[in-house]
Amino acid sequence: MQNRSIEVCLTPALFPYRQLGDALIVVVDVLRATTSICTAFEHGVEAILPVATLEEARAFKQQGYLVAAERDGQVLDFADFGNSAFNFMNNKVKGKTIVYSTTNGTQTIQMAAASGHLVSVGAFSNISALAKFACNWHGNLTVLCSGWKNRFNLEDTVFAGALAQRLIEEGKYQTRDDATQAAVGLWNQAKGDLQGYLLAAEHHERLKKLNLDDVLPYTFTLDTCLSVPVLEDGVLTDYRNRKL
Amino acid sequence: MQNRSIEVCLTPALFPYRQLGDALIVVVDVLRATTSICTAFEHGVEAILPVATLEEARAFKQQGYLVAAERDGQVLDFADFGNSAFNFMNNKVKGKTIVYSTTNGTQTIQMAAASGHLVSVGAFSNISALAKFACNWHGNLTVLCSGWKNRFNLEDTVFAGALAQRLIEEGKYQTRDDATQAAVGLWNQAKGDLQGYLLAAEHHERLKKLNLDDVLPYTFTLDTCLSVPVLEDGVLTDYRNRKL
Repeated sequence: MQNRSIEVCLTPALFPYRQLGDALIVVVDVLRATTSICTAFEHGVEAILPVATLEEARAFKQQGYLVAAERDGQVLDFADFGNSAFNFMNNKVKGKTIVYSTTNGTQTIQMAAASGHLVSVGAFSNISALAKFACNWHGNLTVLCSGWKNRFNLEDTVFAGALAQRLIEEGKYQTRDDATQAAVGLWNQAKGDLQGYLLAAEHHERLKKLNLDDVLPYTFTLDTCLSVPVLEDGVLTDYRNRKL
Repeated sequence: MQNRSIEVCLTPALFPYRQLGDALIVVVDVLRATTSICTAFEHGVEAILPVATLEEARAFKQQGYLVAAERDGQVLDFADFGNSAFNFMNNKVKGKTIVYSTTNGTQTIQMAAASGHLVSVGAFSNISALAKFACNWHGNLTVLCSGWKNRFNLEDTVFAGALAQRLIEEGKYQTRDDATQAAVGLWNQAKGDLQGYLLAAEHHERLKKLNLDDVLPYTFTLDTCLSVPVLEDGVLTDYRNRKL
């Protein structure tokens, strides 16, 4: 089982240069799309349609869908709510299909989907459930960090390192990838005080300015969710529900 | 002086997404172009013409220039020598202009030059001289890592972190850039045993396979050179010589 490889793409701009062509792609946008998606499934959302553009989101709204949409951290006027994980912790969303569009995360999911590989979604909130899913996966694994508008960010990279370290320590994956080694190194610097370490990150400043940092303690808490979102035909559902 | 900013571009693919438009660009390709360029000036080379393509290198050879050229670590058949720093430690190169083309480094220098900003070159070999030069620079600073074919690499990033940490500790620069913070973090993990840390890197494996790793102890030694290569009109010269 040791011959499966893991690599980390630090931003979507580096996705074309990945080396593992045949891989499960785990999309990461810790602040905040992938944390919110894991939370939504944990609270009974049936399905999520990630859409890249606001035009698509608006069109779905006109068809009667619930829409969660933001740009640069701000909820859009036509949307039912924004992308904070807190928005998905209520009965209003239970059993519903939600159309979802954010600054970085949903574009990254669509980019990953266009590669033709199986796509999943990861965050600190579902790390153990996702690690278990990845251990049972038969092939290679690419962690694709959403970053911020194609720039590197710390929180996605630290999560990538946390996931990679688990899979390597489990003996299920190996790596020869410098980005994975760097991510594991950063996770080991951060893990003792994850929130303190990531408080210095660029994106946190951005949320703070918008008064959107109330969700950070939740975001940086491991294993609040058991969901493993998986994309099929453009729709995210919880892998647990499929197995039932 | 504290309002000058530093940022790190982890690979040339991320250069379009840099935030500091008006900046000194320090190009880094520790293995091996920028280490070799610093070494060449330290041993009396007059000027270096970095060229991106092999066709350009071949054309200069036909005009009688000394040519150093490699691809994927292999010296090219028409070249006078390859890009190991050891090739530049002899009297054959003293006072000469050398045409230089490598897999990653020279393309990165040309990309930086095309941005219209002042371009310099850094490696562990000239870190103190370069830091002094950067402290006297009036504007922002972008460290541009060459990586490997647009992929992230550890050795360039660790160098970027070492340089950034010095400039920040000197009180000359500040950063709000996640990539800079990550690079500084990796430098602090690596600095106790730089060569041991970087032995695990992808590119070292590549050099080892080609029996080209004899130069690594020299490459990872700080301050073997006092040169500060600066690009003007497509030609690299040593900044020290300009001031005379």
